[in-house]
Amino acid sequence: MSQDPFAWTAEALRRRRAAGLLRTLAPRPADSPLLDLAGNDYLGLSRHPDVVRAAAEAALHWGAGASGSRLVTGSTELHARLESELADFCGFEAALVLSSGYAANLAAVTALTNAPGGGGLLVSDAHNHASLIDGCRLSRARTAVAAHADPEAVAKELAGHTRQAAEGPALVVTDSVFSVDGDAAPLAELAGVCSAAGAGLLVDDAHGLGVLGDGGRGAAWAAGLAGRPGTVATVTLSKSLGSQGGAVLGPAHVIAHLVNTARTFIFDTGLAPAAAGGALGALRLLRAEPGRAARTRAAAAELHTRLAAAGLEATRPDAAVVSVRAPSPQAAVEWAAACRAAGIQVGCFRPPSVPDGISRLRLTARGDLAEQVLADAADTVIAAAPHTG
Amino acid sequence: MSQDPFAWTAEALRRRRAAGLLRTLAPRPADSPLLDLAGNDYLGLSRHPDVVRAAAEAALHWGAGASGSRLVTGSTELHARLESELADFCGFEAALVLSSGYAANLAAVTALTNAPGGGGLLVSDAHNHASLIDGCRLSRARTAVAAHADPEAVAKELAGHTRQAAEGPALVVTDSVFSVDGDAAPLAELAGVCSAAGAGLLVDDAHGLGVLGDGGRGAAWAAGLAGRPGTVATVTLSKSLGSQGGAVLGPAHVIAHLVNTARTFIFDTGLAPAAAGGALGALRLLRAEPGRAARTRAAAAELHTRLAAAGLEATRPDAAVVSVRAPSPQAAVEWAAACRAAGIQVGCFRPPSVPDGISRLRLTARGDLAEQVLADAADTVIAAAPHTG
Repeated sequence: MSQDPFAWTAEALRRRRAAGLLRTLAPRPADSPLLDLAGNDYLGLSRHPDVVRAAAEAALHWGAGASGSRLVTGSTELHARLESELADFCGFEAALVLSSGYAANLAAVTALTNAPGGGGLLVSDAHNHASLIDGCRLSRARTAVAAHADPEAVAKELAGHTRQAAEGPALVVTDSVFSVDGDAAPLAELAGVCSAAGAGLLVDDAHGLGVLGDGGRGAAWAAGLAGRPGTVATVTLSKSLGSQGGAVLGPAHVIAHLVNTARTFIFDTGLAPAAAGGALGALRLLRAEPGRAARTRAAAAELHTRLAAAGLEATRPDAAVVSVRAPSPQAAVEWAAACRAAGIQVGCFRPPSVPDGISRLRLTARGDLAEQVLADAADTVIAAAPHTG
Repeated sequence: MSQDPFAWTAEALRRRRAAGLLRTLAPRPADSPLLDLAGNDYLGLSRHPDVVRAAAEAALHWGAGASGSRLVTGSTELHARLESELADFCGFEAALVLSSGYAANLAAVTALTNAPGGGGLLVSDAHNHASLIDGCRLSRARTAVAAHADPEAVAKELAGHTRQAAEGPALVVTDSVFSVDGDAAPLAELAGVCSAAGAGLLVDDAHGLGVLGDGGRGAAWAAGLAGRPGTVATVTLSKSLGSQGGAVLGPAHVIAHLVNTARTFIFDTGLAPAAAGGALGALRLLRAEPGRAARTRAAAAELHTRLAAAGLEATRPDAAVVSVRAPSPQAAVEWAAACRAAGIQVGCFRPPSVPDGISRLRLTARGDLAEQVLADAADTVIAAAPHTG
């Protein structure tokens, strides 16, 4: 045969285009005139002078790359410092930095369920992030998907597991703040259910760090779970900390176990010094200026109030993400395009990227924006809305 | 229950320690006095002034982080430039940059086998990297593990697949240069087998880029496969390019298909600008100074010659990695420690991290080292060897 073995991908793209579902990349310039309400740079730190300077200095001092995997040559004292300060800030005993939040979730989910002897159970929230789902797929444990934000459903799955003897470890896995809708998980209730069943709780705090908890210490801290023996958290360095990378936070023996067994840690090059340095710079800024988290939450609340007052179906934000329903997938696309034409970039989610089939805009209420800028942005989104347009 | 649900990880660590298999992190200072023959910075570019400056300037100009996923706010013109120049250098139509080589392999393996209708087949070399194996585990395709570097074994698996009608796509997956032993895959033969069976070929060129092919264009280029419709390659930006990240290279429709379907691309924050900038700086250096790849190969050959002349069982290197057998796991550990005490850091691999149960040292012959430095290093490794010690 001399056919193109990848011809089927071209055919899949044609079908996607015909259905109006083709995704393409739109590279932006460094000085984009658009107001960014679509990204996850919740505190606006990715462009903060202290943070970019810390990133640049780390590259100059430590090199452009880590040069090897963390267990060979890729662990620098900069990584160790970041891990120590991150654990301390979030209230955990230890931390382990990986090259992305995705890698951190794959590491934590697999390493904390693949116990010698097998037989583990994963209970995963139905709205969990793709990286947690892929972690479940890579784990040798059985995965039960529990209804969204439903501690009773979780308890039922755990009860079925612990009734049998000689079972492996049980782990409940949940986002702290769900990315698309911005709603929070019932962490305290989930922790109670886990504790009663002897299960571990893994909280993906990608959207909580920097926004929730005292000074932005995260959702686990806010729920009183940070540093508990049964709680492990993952965070990203690429959202509120404005950089790149991910980390797992937990008891020292859990972190040491990950160092020894987590494949996405062991077989990956260490995080680049610039990313570690940038994240450390942002973390120190959070400590020095603890009002940033509360300002971000207030901005989200204000944005929601304005949108709701205009009659839009906006979800009350539990963190920095405000989700607004659109009447149809096509209306969502047109609404986002109208916002963009008016100078504001918003997120646009529609099936199959939404957990519940409902198309919506996703707005992130950055804590570094002046009140008037945010108010004007809300007016723009309202003016562009399909039912008023 | 109030027990620690992660107590089993502490027990696993105790067993590991008792067996002498505990791995711990050893963070290094920026000015380590050790000569690094353990990392994957094959050309020594991670500390090259042009590369670190490019990384630092990218952070200052573009920000410390990409701010969002590539499909939302995380694609900058810097990413687009890197993708365009990387594809052009390696001889492929298009490229897609991800946050790590691990993520690139997960993306390519899953997206190129999960065709509509299912029924795909993956044929994976028995010595493949963990990230390719995890890609196979995440794919919905059936995986057949073929004997190491054995095109006939691959052909047999493909024949079984294509005999049946209505099957999904078949993809053969292999490292170009195997990380631990440094041996090369028979790419031209594999491509012939794939072509005859209508299967795609995915080459992980993590250890080939910068070392093999004209001026370091990689193993696919060297084998005459770059730009062929049936070949897709993955590379890392964290080895020869001295930075962080990974990329998939292939026909434009394959890359567009990944943009639309690869979960580790869609649901991950874009690569940090400093990493993209550092990699682009290194790539331009490779173009401007095309002798670097050949110097690295010559250094590896020279290192092998010296070790073999001293009676050590060193594998003839196909790229930059020289593997030397140790008589036992314990001897390997002691040998590496003796090298370290004498000022040289080498890799030490023993079961279960070796594909064949044989413990060895792994030396990387960096192309930026002066001949005398490498000769002295070889003498040090020889003097520290167990049978001469």
